[in-house]
Amino acid sequence: MTYCVATLLEEGIVFLSDSRTNAGIDNISTFRKMTVFERKGDRVLVLMSAGNLAISQSVVSLLWADRATGDDDGPFIMDAANLYEAAQCVGRAIRTVHTRDAAALKEHGIDFSVSFILGGQIRGDRPRLFQLYSAGNFIEASAETCYFQIGESKYGKPIIDRMVRPETTLRDAAKCALISMDSTIRSNLSVGLPLDLAIYPRDTLALTQRRTIGADDEYFQMVRSRWGSALRSAFQDLPESPWG
Amino acid sequence: MTYCVATLLEEGIVFLSDSRTNAGIDNISTFRKMTVFERKGDRVLVLMSAGNLAISQSVVSLLWADRATGDDDGPFIMDAANLYEAAQCVGRAIRTVHTRDAAALKEHGIDFSVSFILGGQIRGDRPRLFQLYSAGNFIEASAETCYFQIGESKYGKPIIDRMVRPETTLRDAAKCALISMDSTIRSNLSVGLPLDLAIYPRDTLALTQRRTIGADDEYFQMVRSRWGSALRSAFQDLPESPWG
Repeated sequence: MTYCVATLLEEGIVFLSDSRTNAGIDNISTFRKMTVFERKGDRVLVLMSAGNLAISQSVVSLLWADRATGDDDGPFIMDAANLYEAAQCVGRAIRTVHTRDAAALKEHGIDFSVSFILGGQIRGDRPRLFQLYSAGNFIEASAETCYFQIGESKYGKPIIDRMVRPETTLRDAAKCALISMDSTIRSNLSVGLPLDLAIYPRDTLALTQRRTIGADDEYFQMVRSRWGSALRSAFQDLPESPWG
Repeated sequence: MTYCVATLLEEGIVFLSDSRTNAGIDNISTFRKMTVFERKGDRVLVLMSAGNLAISQSVVSLLWADRATGDDDGPFIMDAANLYEAAQCVGRAIRTVHTRDAAALKEHGIDFSVSFILGGQIRGDRPRLFQLYSAGNFIEASAETCYFQIGESKYGKPIIDRMVRPETTLRDAAKCALISMDSTIRSNLSVGLPLDLAIYPRDTLALTQRRTIGADDEYFQMVRSRWGSALRSAFQDLPESPWG
């Protein structure tokens, strides 16, 4: 499994992904789930994936392979005119892999299961965030629902539901994403370090931060230990249950 | 869906269940998930269920129907010599319903899916807590893993993982269960009020608290509002992310 989260804010977009994959509990590996398509001053697109690794890797490979001319029905993702077109590029790549692999997977009892988060900004368009499904269809984040999660999303959802709004700062959203990831890692073995963090400040058309966070990262270590103790204090400060 | 949690502590056992069921998003109802088998001074058994409501209700009905003589292979649950035998009673009832209904359900494309938490104490035995699966098999809580959850368990797992140990008091475990339930209700529409809370203090062989908690419950209202603001304070107190 995996866990990826992205939040679309007034200030920009924060992306965070883990790097654990597993094909059974005795077959655990580390693969990066984040791919960046960037041309400074023109576009930044960050793509994160969850689901079957063979499918998601094929989708990314196909997106790069379209470099020369695009695919049959549209442009190369680096030439898409806006984020909606870029999401269509990813959707078409998913469908291409489906056409090629789904029947063979089905014969082996394997679902064609993959999901992506795509976000960023293309010159002339606003920052936008999309979530794509196995069928290559997609939805777009809005002010009402300004974040998407894929993979093992439930453990880390409550803290985001409580903390993140469109007016949240990039720094606070990054902190919240790391807490959400920490809660997920503690409760689910299939999500693990290192993490990939990318931060895109609105209208800069360049990533300010793209960072790999391992067990030795000082800020993440501090979040892990201090969030746990802050929660315990908050818990103890809450009036005792009248029932016991 | 549903959410139930129980924690086995040195002081006793805390049980909490919600009461929402849904057969599709346009078919939402309220059904209690908690059944108590109690004979003061002899035994307290609390059973909570998740999964297909027709199955779980049938299991409970069969357990009561065994009142006269028990089932073919063992005693009535109120005559079980210890908690392990009581868990076997529930397991046999699950298998009886499986034998009767599973094939018909399969014809309609419905999985035979049900799970239970059973906990309490029988005179002469220690307090014990079990989780039962669709096959009627079960596992028992221990000092290393002192809680069980069934239903929509992921949202509310991180707070329990961080807060609950065998030495946690009944009052703190009840508070933690309510926070865990609140996080789940906020993030998942298929879990809802009212809640059933039962608290069993070790060696009393009687429930001290069996309480229905609705939206107007003062303590739960306080938990909902103050936990949210305590989390926000803890979040703001945590040093700002160096990346933003």
